[in-house]
Amino acid sequence: MAARSLTSHSRLLVRRLDELGRISDEPGELTRTFLSPAMERANHLVGGWMREAGLVVREDSVGNLIGRLESSRAGSPDPAALGGKGGVGRPRPAKTLLLGSHLDTVRNAGRFDGALGVVLPIVALAELRRRGVVLPFAVEVLGFSEEEGVRFASAYLGSKGYAGKMCAADLKLRDADRVSVGEAIRGWSRGAPAAVLRRNAARAPRPQQLLGYLEVHIEQGPVLEDRKLAVGVVSAIASQTRGRLTFRGQAGHAGTTPMSLRRDALAGAAEFVLLAEAFAAARSPLVATVGTINIPSGAANVIPGEAALSLDVRHPNDAACNRAVAQLVAQAKRIARRRRLALTWQPTMTHRATPCSRTLTASLIRSVRAVQGRSLSLVSGAGHDGVVMAALTPVAMLFVRCRDGLSHHPDEYAAPADLGVALQVVIDFLLRLAKDHPS
Amino acid sequence: MAARSLTSHSRLLVRRLDELGRISDEPGELTRTFLSPAMERANHLVGGWMREAGLVVREDSVGNLIGRLESSRAGSPDPAALGGKGGVGRPRPAKTLLLGSHLDTVRNAGRFDGALGVVLPIVALAELRRRGVVLPFAVEVLGFSEEEGVRFASAYLGSKGYAGKMCAADLKLRDADRVSVGEAIRGWSRGAPAAVLRRNAARAPRPQQLLGYLEVHIEQGPVLEDRKLAVGVVSAIASQTRGRLTFRGQAGHAGTTPMSLRRDALAGAAEFVLLAEAFAAARSPLVATVGTINIPSGAANVIPGEAALSLDVRHPNDAACNRAVAQLVAQAKRIARRRRLALTWQPTMTHRATPCSRTLTASLIRSVRAVQGRSLSLVSGAGHDGVVMAALTPVAMLFVRCRDGLSHHPDEYAAPADLGVALQVVIDFLLRLAKDHPS
Repeated sequence: MAARSLTSHSRLLVRRLDELGRISDEPGELTRTFLSPAMERANHLVGGWMREAGLVVREDSVGNLIGRLESSRAGSPDPAALGGKGGVGRPRPAKTLLLGSHLDTVRNAGRFDGALGVVLPIVALAELRRRGVVLPFAVEVLGFSEEEGVRFASAYLGSKGYAGKMCAADLKLRDADRVSVGEAIRGWSRGAPAAVLRRNAARAPRPQQLLGYLEVHIEQGPVLEDRKLAVGVVSAIASQTRGRLTFRGQAGHAGTTPMSLRRDALAGAAEFVLLAEAFAAARSPLVATVGTINIPSGAANVIPGEAALSLDVRHPNDAACNRAVAQLVAQAKRIARRRRLALTWQPTMTHRATPCSRTLTASLIRSVRAVQGRSLSLVSGAGHDGVVMAALTPVAMLFVRCRDGLSHHPDEYAAPADLGVALQVVIDFLLRLAKDHPS
Repeated sequence: MAARSLTSHSRLLVRRLDELGRISDEPGELTRTFLSPAMERANHLVGGWMREAGLVVREDSVGNLIGRLESSRAGSPDPAALGGKGGVGRPRPAKTLLLGSHLDTVRNAGRFDGALGVVLPIVALAELRRRGVVLPFAVEVLGFSEEEGVRFASAYLGSKGYAGKMCAADLKLRDADRVSVGEAIRGWSRGAPAAVLRRNAARAPRPQQLLGYLEVHIEQGPVLEDRKLAVGVVSAIASQTRGRLTFRGQAGHAGTTPMSLRRDALAGAAEFVLLAEAFAAARSPLVATVGTINIPSGAANVIPGEAALSLDVRHPNDAACNRAVAQLVAQAKRIARRRRLALTWQPTMTHRATPCSRTLTASLIRSVRAVQGRSLSLVSGAGHDGVVMAALTPVAMLFVRCRDGLSHHPDEYAAPADLGVALQVVIDFLLRLAKDHPS
């Protein structure tokens, strides 16, 4: 691609992200939640860009936006087999590569998280079209309707719906207005929710129809910035354990209890905070975070009798994550014993690691090397739609540098030049895949 | 005093504390606040015990209960000179010894804090009366109407009113129902608050009329229990500084930010918590407490960008307290600098130390030695009415062991045997003072 064309395409990408970023459920800030009016407008806008790029556009019954480009060599598509509404008896289509991310946002969000991974592939396909390239496989660009878990405090509703993995329990979740997922789906699709789930499951693409899933996403962390790289390749989405550690000692008067007679729960918790920090620092890529700490009935003049803290531990490898959690809890017990405190550990959440596909990732690394000179492998400590999609098809992820690692904030920013690099990588990746998969 | 009489007197004391502990503004728990209906009933009950012991009883205009016993050798009292309502032109009374504490409580209180220091002297005077002892000085037993600061979030309103130190700013304080101190006083005393203050100031006892102030109080700490002593003598009420330390770093995603790139405000705060603990432990009787810690917008999956903690530092000596605070803040700055965090320190409260009177305390120590065999000097880390009374007259304080150092709690407990020891000490102290002050 000529530098001039690249520049004009990254400009288009920036313009479209700006335009999409103005579609919000809240005036003055960017907030788009599952099946909200703003999501309907966002699908309309992005659907238009898909059509412009030659894609056939539809929405599924849980609000996912799907733009499909057939391989011309595979003959006409069979929409029924891919979840469309009409047509039967046509020849089976070629295998399909999925590219996408989510179009919903957190509250008061930035305009890159999610949106980038939907808009960028559309621009890439438009560029290939301009060049007259015909891919030997079909492509679907996916704009998932829900990933952030804002409205129903449960993430991945969009990709679960697309993959036919949404279940009856999901339908019962309720938002702040007591509206259930089932009721929201009925309002959106005019169909009975249970029937919607059945239809979704029946129409979900089957693994043998798919080549894989590529997601482009801002890093939401500071590593690429620190290493001065525009993009990097994700090796795995980390294993994650969250829980609550509670230290219990003896509350007492801050003035009348000598230091030697104290059993200060906060002092035990503080010791653990530092221990967890040093423990993880010595075991990269392990990360351990104490994000909250709570002293019930705490007061400036009362020695803390109880201190409860959250622990979040992540590692690309399940076994290493579990081992780290066990060691940290054992150390916490040792601290508690030495300080004559009681300790309880209550795990609240475990996500297994999602390794990215070796084959697909190897192709992506080759593309990154071709465009950027060198590639860097990163673990994604954050969850992404790829976690759900990995159950369906091989997954690869491209991370794009974002300023200060900042995300979930209106100041979230990725430089146009970096977006241009990501765009070039995706185009190179599609062309590389086309060479590897001659029809 | 015969052992049998001691036992019967400590039984009486326990019974009265139980009875007084049932007078509450809240059903099912002990709560008595400034000028509340329960305080009126408590004054009525305790006033009856005072009369039984031969004291002349009055209430002042801010709800303090005052029982006066003249020295018979000094002739009839001059009530006007001591704030009473009638009589002029009588001979001046002998000097007066004050004994007392407060009758208000915290919410859901125990029955010893405050009440003990009012009821015990009444029982002691009743015993002296039974023995036919006539003291060569007058005695006033004081039940202050406010010390805990519960209703108006400002402590010592009772003793300030008694000592004529209540000021116009105090009158403007408002409780949770927006009732001001002035309005509460008007309701209680039927007088204009400003006039009440003027009258109180005019009628406050003058230093030259007083021998001193003795307060008996539960320790509210674990030292006497640890040292296996029923009572101890307070050498000073500690100097105290309170403030807020805020560490500011960079919030970040708990999953995507490697340990090496973090600026975790909580980790800095945790380091300070442990530093303050070790610093004070090495400098007894210094105590330093971090009682609260707050992470604004903290979440389990977010690296803390800010952590604010309370610091409470106490020492019997003002200079040592100030020096410790300065050193702790300097150390906090060092921690912040090393961790690339910003730090702010905001002092919120300073109380200077109140040293107890050497002479009066020396007498009290002799009494403790006579009764208990040995005496122990303690610093009171908690504030007491003595802080206000020290501006008026020499102060001495006797601490009584309480179980587990527990106070401000329904389980607050002092053993009858320990109350008996305290009673014997106060009787010995009165007799000793009588010998030292022959009229």
